[in-house]
Amino acid sequence: MSESNSVLIGNKPVMNYVLACITLFHGGAKEVNVKARGRSISRAVDVVEVVRRRFLPDVKIRKVGIGTQQMAPREEGSTPTNVSTIEITLES
Amino acid sequence: MSESNSVLIGNKPVMNYVLACITLFHGGAKEVNVKARGRSISRAVDVVEVVRRRFLPDVKIRKVGIGTQQMAPREEGSTPTNVSTIEITLES
Repeated sequence: MSESNSVLIGNKPVMNYVLACITLFHGGAKEVNVKARGRSISRAVDVVEVVRRRFLPDVKIRKVGIGTQQMAPREEGSTPTNVSTIEITLES
Repeated sequence: MSESNSVLIGNKPVMNYVLACITLFHGGAKEVNVKARGRSISRAVDVVEVVRRRFLPDVKIRKVGIGTQQMAPREEGSTPTNVSTIEITLES
């Protein structure tokens, strides 16, 4: 699967990411990965639910994966911090 | 599965819920459901990752489900709001 079919969730409004997902599916994508980390994880779930329930009812959730990513320390000598991640794979 | 094997994530520190999960597994539970909604969803993922990576490496994620729950309107006549939910099933 091409990495271009990913939507990385940040701090923008939910509808921005919903539109990004819809655009990918309308462009012919069979799969779209919605990825987020840290506090954006709950927004990623919001995005997927809005896409499925309001716009593309035929889209299914194929897989939900969660994990941990180690962030590089901000300063020399400080300990690295962990951040939780989620990856939700949608298929049309 | 008994409904008592659920940990509902709220606004307390992550370690409170981690301890709740560990206590259930140590008490003989084969499955524990970690549930959250709205902004607590990212904390639910944190809880699961800490349980698995720091305390109980044998615990597996059996299933991750996401959904939408309709909240009753706060005032008469106002529209109901939707909130996203997550349910992560862990098994030992």
